[in-house]
Amino acid sequence: MQVNLGANSYPIVIENGLLHKIKEQIAEIFPKGRIMVVSDDSVFALYGEKVLSQLREFYECHSVIIPHGEASKSFHMLPKLYEAMLEAKISRSDLIIALGGGVTGDLTGFAAATYLRGVKYVQIPTSLLAQVDSSVGGKTAVDLPQGKNLVGAFYHPKLVLIDPDVLKTLPKRYLVDGMGEVIKYGCIKDAELFDKLEQAGSFADLMPQMAEMIAACVDIKRRVVEKDQFDTGERMLLNFGHTLAHTIEQYYHYERESHGEAVAIGMYQITRLAEEKGLTESGCAERIRNVLQAYELPYRCQVQAQELTGAIELDKKNLNRNLNVILLRRIGESYIYPTASTFFAEAGEV
Amino acid sequence: MQVNLGANSYPIVIENGLLHKIKEQIAEIFPKGRIMVVSDDSVFALYGEKVLSQLREFYECHSVIIPHGEASKSFHMLPKLYEAMLEAKISRSDLIIALGGGVTGDLTGFAAATYLRGVKYVQIPTSLLAQVDSSVGGKTAVDLPQGKNLVGAFYHPKLVLIDPDVLKTLPKRYLVDGMGEVIKYGCIKDAELFDKLEQAGSFADLMPQMAEMIAACVDIKRRVVEKDQFDTGERMLLNFGHTLAHTIEQYYHYERESHGEAVAIGMYQITRLAEEKGLTESGCAERIRNVLQAYELPYRCQVQAQELTGAIELDKKNLNRNLNVILLRRIGESYIYPTASTFFAEAGEV
Repeated sequence: MQVNLGANSYPIVIENGLLHKIKEQIAEIFPKGRIMVVSDDSVFALYGEKVLSQLREFYECHSVIIPHGEASKSFHMLPKLYEAMLEAKISRSDLIIALGGGVTGDLTGFAAATYLRGVKYVQIPTSLLAQVDSSVGGKTAVDLPQGKNLVGAFYHPKLVLIDPDVLKTLPKRYLVDGMGEVIKYGCIKDAELFDKLEQAGSFADLMPQMAEMIAACVDIKRRVVEKDQFDTGERMLLNFGHTLAHTIEQYYHYERESHGEAVAIGMYQITRLAEEKGLTESGCAERIRNVLQAYELPYRCQVQAQELTGAIELDKKNLNRNLNVILLRRIGESYIYPTASTFFAEAGEV
Repeated sequence: MQVNLGANSYPIVIENGLLHKIKEQIAEIFPKGRIMVVSDDSVFALYGEKVLSQLREFYECHSVIIPHGEASKSFHMLPKLYEAMLEAKISRSDLIIALGGGVTGDLTGFAAATYLRGVKYVQIPTSLLAQVDSSVGGKTAVDLPQGKNLVGAFYHPKLVLIDPDVLKTLPKRYLVDGMGEVIKYGCIKDAELFDKLEQAGSFADLMPQMAEMIAACVDIKRRVVEKDQFDTGERMLLNFGHTLAHTIEQYYHYERESHGEAVAIGMYQITRLAEEKGLTESGCAERIRNVLQAYELPYRCQVQAQELTGAIELDKKNLNRNLNVILLRRIGESYIYPTASTFFAEAGEV
């Protein structure tokens, strides 16, 4: 699969077992030089040596390990990465590899975008969320104490390598987390994908189709990003469920719901509300709720909407006072609805 | 004047007295919203109120003041800027203005490039160096403790406003500093500009022609940047004199020679050496030395070249082991000469 963005175009390879043969893939975009692999301690323990042992034959390899978890996606983690790159004498013509989930990918992408004003990097996402969402699209970012993703850059990798087999070693809760985004793609753009998720009805039945499912999601993301690289139009559709999700995550200080769980609640609740207002075909919310439950995702958090929406004004996407929410016309079809935070006034408990 | 870079194109306006009528210029690219002016304490004291009073009529204005001096161009200064922008609720659709010299411009440009993944910004350079060099070309950067400009981004302003009148309030040493780069443009691309600098022969005689002189420099930079936005080819010519300059600056920990002074020494010394090697038409070094002296710039620092070049391997542009130096064929014509740091082996005292 190829993301077509002119000079920033890049291939995405999705294949079971790909992690055993990354050397050939890397060689296509990077003939020689130094490589810096960035990973977290959990992922590095599982896959670090497998990746490095293949690359050491052809490249001078270095690695830097960050602690796992959200706290590592911080502005204050950047000097650690820059320092490691300087010590390894990584130059503008060398390569950075992000091996890990969304935190590693976003942080490493931003470091690659800014070290020496930009060096080439490759994404090897190892969580479902990173595979279907954050590794594609060129959004890199780190958090500030004041909020998430407040500092970042649009900076595309040269290559994305997705091995669905790694999901077998993923703790269940991370698989559940990623399903929130998979269901989102079905809701906003792909009724057929949504049908398949309904039909499979459980992780056990879905796993054999995982590579195909990931490819469907990545293909949607790719097409949306090609149309709207800098997130000023169509790309906003990818925020379906995210307005409420961000408020939930903030309300619980990112400690209770995972991102995927918060998105799950956000998708169901906004669709329920939109149905009540006649903005979404009726029956959608119920179908969404059933699919969420099948994949062990929540659909409510039992807080009054008004308590949550106080935080909306602080969400960076809404700093310009108006609020664009993403609604479904029906399953598989979404649109941008310009409104204000009063949209949630009658939502009651969500 | 227009910098043509496709979607990143932007106008540069050069006019005496421009600072008194910036409102009209800003209005052309930014109809409404919030503005954050970033400046240092020295420049803000001179021009801050003049700029803000014009803008307050039409925009919600905020400002953040950094201490003057090189130390402010630091990675660790960024959170102060981000925090000010968040407090002022600057959104993706608002505007940042950099009002000051190279430090303010580079730091503010990088903050604008990375805050919320990029907000619009305007450069109002108030030093000669910033007017002829750093405000045009889209290179933004901050320093790490390990070295200068190690973290940055290519990010273009929406508008550059240059008022040569501000140079009248500039302490003489900053004027001298900027002349290093002005002479460089003559050397690498514009024999006519070099002739004019020779003929004027002093600041007193040059000042009435300053607007024209700045326009000639900016026009050269603009053309070079248009051909090579990401600094992989022709743009390297702008580094004439900079290889030795960086080693001199590092050797003296940026405390003795200013950047322009170091570039002055670098231009003369590398040309002297290139003449000895038969790589530059003879007589050029002497003409350069005379012009440098006319504008009160040094041409030597009385250190053994080999002591300096130890630092070359640490220069970020040379991390890939080979060394490209920029040489003159003759005044007004330059070329890239691939070599190694041994180029300086026989230079003796520089």
